Amino acid sequence: MKRPTMADIARRAGVSKVAVSYALNDQPGVSEATRASIKNIAEELGWRPNSAARALTGGRAQAVGLIVRRPARTLGVEPFFMEFISGVEAVLAEHAYALMLQMAGDQEQEIEVCRRWWGERRVDGVFLMDLRTDDERVGAVREIGLPAVAIGPPEVAGGVPAIWSDDGASVYEIVRYLAALGHRRIARVAGPAAFAHTAVRDAALAEASREAGISEATVVHTDYTGDAGARAARALLIAPARPTALIFDNDIMAVAALSVAQELGLSIPADLSVVAWDESPLTQVVRPTLSAVTRDIPAYGAHSATALLSLIGGEDVVDAREGYAQFVPRGSTAPPPPDPATR
Amino acid sequence: MKRPTMADIARRAGVSKVAVSYALNDQPGVSEATRASIKNIAEELGWRPNSAARALTGGRAQAVGLIVRRPARTLGVEPFFMEFISGVEAVLAEHAYALMLQMAGDQEQEIEVCRRWWGERRVDGVFLMDLRTDDERVGAVREIGLPAVAIGPPEVAGGVPAIWSDDGASVYEIVRYLAALGHRRIARVAGPAAFAHTAVRDAALAEASREAGISEATVVHTDYTGDAGARAARALLIAPARPTALIFDNDIMAVAALSVAQELGLSIPADLSVVAWDESPLTQVVRPTLSAVTRDIPAYGAHSATALLSLIGGEDVVDAREGYAQFVPRGSTAPPPPDPATR
Repeated sequence: MKRPTMADIARRAGVSKVAVSYALNDQPGVSEATRASIKNIAEELGWRPNSAARALTGGRAQAVGLIVRRPARTLGVEPFFMEFISGVEAVLAEHAYALMLQMAGDQEQEIEVCRRWWGERRVDGVFLMDLRTDDERVGAVREIGLPAVAIGPPEVAGGVPAIWSDDGASVYEIVRYLAALGHRRIARVAGPAAFAHTAVRDAALAEASREAGISEATVVHTDYTGDAGARAARALLIAPARPTALIFDNDIMAVAALSVAQELGLSIPADLSVVAWDESPLTQVVRPTLSAVTRDIPAYGAHSATALLSLIGGEDVVDAREGYAQFVPRGSTAPPPPDPATR
Repeated sequence: MKRPTMADIARRAGVSKVAVSYALNDQPGVSEATRASIKNIAEELGWRPNSAARALTGGRAQAVGLIVRRPARTLGVEPFFMEFISGVEAVLAEHAYALMLQMAGDQEQEIEVCRRWWGERRVDGVFLMDLRTDDERVGAVREIGLPAVAIGPPEVAGGVPAIWSDDGASVYEIVRYLAALGHRRIARVAGPAAFAHTAVRDAALAEASREAGISEATVVHTDYTGDAGARAARALLIAPARPTALIFDNDIMAVAALSVAQELGLSIPADLSVVAWDESPLTQVVRPTLSAVTRDIPAYGAHSATALLSLIGGEDVVDAREGYAQFVPRGSTAPPPPDPATR
């Protein structure tokens, strides 16, 4: 079946194409009765305004873009992206906006996609995910003139409106809790060092540890995979003065640590405390359930989408901070073992 | 910065807009030298053909759509979707096609999105994911005239080309292996009964069990969440004649079963064998590692995208079967316990 056109409606209604156009675009030039009849026929035929025609005349693509630059294998097991997207979609759906999704291998490719999308009028704006400490995309979208919202801390967003989660505050909350339990040697198994939110967490860990009187706070950077998390945990736990608490930057690495502890004959939480980030269904199906920081990720996506649509609508959009992730102690945190040799 | 137009190029090159159009559309009417110079300037200015203009004249949106109808919380922890999408993207990128992604709450909403996308010329075709035994989308896309590829068995695709994974063969392989180990009471904790691939697995389990001389093969349908998987496992394992082997329809439910077994004082695989589907990084970071069926999901996505692009290109596309998922025994399967009371 061909898509119904204004000509089809005109034929069916026995009026001119011009009359159909007036009626459907709510312009004067036809009687109210004719307008109603034309709209009825358009509805019956399932006619829709052509987005391409609208994009040409109004200049709006009615779509926004999101480019994903993490390996699919990592994305697959980490709930953050799909939850973020579900929040984005909820807002876009209200405004009849579509989401364009594309995978990219590196920053250059991502910038090229932005340039093409904007040049071809496929999108009205983009989200910049996984902001980096030295992010070339920020300068690129400004140069291209492409409306963008950065998902990450404003310090590295270079004037692009940033919607950010205060990861530093969450690190403080975790460290204070572990210190109160008596931990003095903690380690964090982190995400890639190049991500701005990793750097924020790194800095907060150093500062919070010093303030809490924690003598040793190590950070190991990984690629977020369970394998890398297991490897890092193993290396930390066989070291002479092993940490009594491990903080993980995602959920799959924390789950992997449970297996590593098991292999090494350590009991969680008696011998080792484990904290995961973010909380997910995964952190709750394992035993012990994992103490974790949790935030409303769909809400984060929804706020980001609202900001981007405002920006596209020509409004001023300022940096906005999401609530920070709350620490929820579950089964995997306890005071450190009493043996002084392992403290 | 505004998007560069043909007028900008004309001004810079000191030629007419018509000359620019001839040059960029590779039509006669300008000298080769002028054409080269115009193309250089277009490149310098970062000019791109306008997709909206192209869609109006050529009728192609250069985008395909994928509608997701599972809750974000489920999707987040199941690698299938992101891996499938990464395979789709790889093929689309080669053809400068974009992927439109949308979440939908129910079938009706999904059909409405298809209708709107096609009416507004936003997509040239769609994937129908999670085919159902009685799937209204199949009839709808045919009526709308929207090119579609169904991801699921041809029996329920109603003439829409189907790219399907032979789940029945995989069930046979698992059941034969468990029978060879000596299991006689097995249960499968399945996905939603309404999914066509669930029905295929249900039927294969019944048949394969009968052939293998397995006296009891139970199926419990769930919503794929870890919580539901844990609940089903708990109910099965506290029953008087508990199964000695459990097969799960996804990875998160199988991981949840490890915790359930632990709570019930059962040891895996000595007291209970566990099989997961599909294998994922998650099934390999837990202990014991989970015996699982594994397939190349990005390849599945790539083949589906190739089929859809062929269909859009006007070619005949026939149903195609992916290789079936191979069973990979790891640490969670063993002969059943010798105690006759539990066999």
